[in-house]
Amino acid sequence: MTAAIKASTTDSWARVLRLLREGDKFLVAGHNNPDGDALGSTVALGWLLEALGKTYWLYNESPVPDRFSWLRFSQPLQQAHPDWEPRWYILLDCGDSKRVGKDLAARLPLERTVNIDHHVSNRDFGAVNLVEPDRSSVGEMIGYLAQELGFPLKGPLGEAVYLALVTDTGSFSYENTVPKVLELAATIIRQGLNLARFNALLQNQWRMNRLKLMGDVLSRARLFDDGRIGVISIPKAFREERQATVEDCDDMVDYIRRVKGVRIAVSLREDGPRKIKFSLRSTGDTDVEEIASSVGGGGHKNAAGGELHHSLEDAESLLVRMTREYLALADKNPSAAS
Amino acid sequence: MTAAIKASTTDSWARVLRLLREGDKFLVAGHNNPDGDALGSTVALGWLLEALGKTYWLYNESPVPDRFSWLRFSQPLQQAHPDWEPRWYILLDCGDSKRVGKDLAARLPLERTVNIDHHVSNRDFGAVNLVEPDRSSVGEMIGYLAQELGFPLKGPLGEAVYLALVTDTGSFSYENTVPKVLELAATIIRQGLNLARFNALLQNQWRMNRLKLMGDVLSRARLFDDGRIGVISIPKAFREERQATVEDCDDMVDYIRRVKGVRIAVSLREDGPRKIKFSLRSTGDTDVEEIASSVGGGGHKNAAGGELHHSLEDAESLLVRMTREYLALADKNPSAAS
Repeated sequence: MTAAIKASTTDSWARVLRLLREGDKFLVAGHNNPDGDALGSTVALGWLLEALGKTYWLYNESPVPDRFSWLRFSQPLQQAHPDWEPRWYILLDCGDSKRVGKDLAARLPLERTVNIDHHVSNRDFGAVNLVEPDRSSVGEMIGYLAQELGFPLKGPLGEAVYLALVTDTGSFSYENTVPKVLELAATIIRQGLNLARFNALLQNQWRMNRLKLMGDVLSRARLFDDGRIGVISIPKAFREERQATVEDCDDMVDYIRRVKGVRIAVSLREDGPRKIKFSLRSTGDTDVEEIASSVGGGGHKNAAGGELHHSLEDAESLLVRMTREYLALADKNPSAAS
Repeated sequence: MTAAIKASTTDSWARVLRLLREGDKFLVAGHNNPDGDALGSTVALGWLLEALGKTYWLYNESPVPDRFSWLRFSQPLQQAHPDWEPRWYILLDCGDSKRVGKDLAARLPLERTVNIDHHVSNRDFGAVNLVEPDRSSVGEMIGYLAQELGFPLKGPLGEAVYLALVTDTGSFSYENTVPKVLELAATIIRQGLNLARFNALLQNQWRMNRLKLMGDVLSRARLFDDGRIGVISIPKAFREERQATVEDCDDMVDYIRRVKGVRIAVSLREDGPRKIKFSLRSTGDTDVEEIASSVGGGGHKNAAGGELHHSLEDAESLLVRMTREYLALADKNPSAAS
């Protein structure tokens, strides 16, 4: 065992390693609408199983998102079940077994399910559970498995692990960028990753429609509460005018968060009449999960969201009022909420 | 000597280390209009000299940029000369001694100048020259000096080195992110850097005016040559309307570069009538320096720019024509230009 593998879950690591070495007929699945970690860890595990000479099947309910179309797979990612019965189902980056989507969740034999995850909410739903909430990403964990199995993190295997690391650490900027993560990234580069090519593939995937929609939206951004609350709204009409998708709206909340003095960033996306998706972002001790959950949403301390059944205007007013009240309370009572 | 220090310049490292240990009365200066590396390496060297108990003076022709106002200095950054005569002038991140600004450049005794830099164009202008073009940043080099001198990279010293690393590697995404850079970053985190706090300070410094200007500009972005050329223009009237500064326009070219299919990103900023500042960006083998220099500008293969004395409209047409011709030539003759 390398030092990267923690004593507390040593037994789980050993069980997963033994299973990969000795088992066969694996189905590997990440959560649907996969992000860079769900997809990267699936691809990386695929290359590991390929190297081990196993029979395996890479599954996701959703097809490969367009922005990751450049990823190199050992086998195509399937939306269907194989015509052979898997012996082991390995679920990656799923806080809950339902995250793989209805179809697979319905037929999943939990007694033959291996659960590899880093969500703190994970309730060990599998027969084998390798769950470490302190890990930056599941891809990081697959990287350690590869090292334990003696495979260097080069070529498409290294690329897939790197994708997971970069995605889930916000390009090595979030708190989960612990030293081991940077050292693993260093190892992957040392084993041959072409960083310039990789980043061009990863970063230069925006649609022009997204750029223009972003322009429309940012030029109408607003501040409230002496600049402590930043709000951006994406009316459905804006999306339609730019022929932009729901995905094109992703991450826009991060731009208003970057404005100096903004303690809570709010974004609202109008999906239909009285159907509003909202996101809240903060840094440090400002707990936006508290605000989101008070209107039926949820999430984490610094990133939360939910849905509101109001007009866009009313949803904005509601969220500004709630965040304003939260900040006023936090000011009065710093130990409790700020 | 650690392995981080290269054999080829071992003698220069030894001379600089001896000078820091045995010398006194240092003036430390980075280039004017300092970026994160010029400023970070100045601050880091300040903390080193402080720890060594030396008399020193931190100089820059420009004041601390607003976005770096959170940086912790061992001594204030001065725009004036000290009232004592420095024994040694240490220039950081200056490809040329003139980069420190007219005032200091005019009085600089080159026989008492120490030149620590990573610009490939540096012509060893000092009495002691520690110039390593392969280094990500001068801050990285100051980090190794600190380690050689036995000071851990913690507190404001670690923060200043980290700032230099993050800035000059594009948050660990450029080609210069070699394994040693990530390992140095890991060491700084291990020695106590609070990454979440640091990144909030670094990233959340935008002015609202900048965000809105960015919106105005991006919603008017255009593609040419089947989407291979992306153009954004910033008319002076836009800046005036948003009360935005020239600095608020920085980095906007990076957004149009992110659009899928764009091989050359062009941005134009109108500073006055017939006074246009332009930037060109590319990835991989597409050489925009060639285009920039053909209209009197300069730069590097993937990042170049210059000034044009045309109307905004004419400057746009000219640059689109030049980039289009470059790409057509590159298509015909891939070995020469693509």
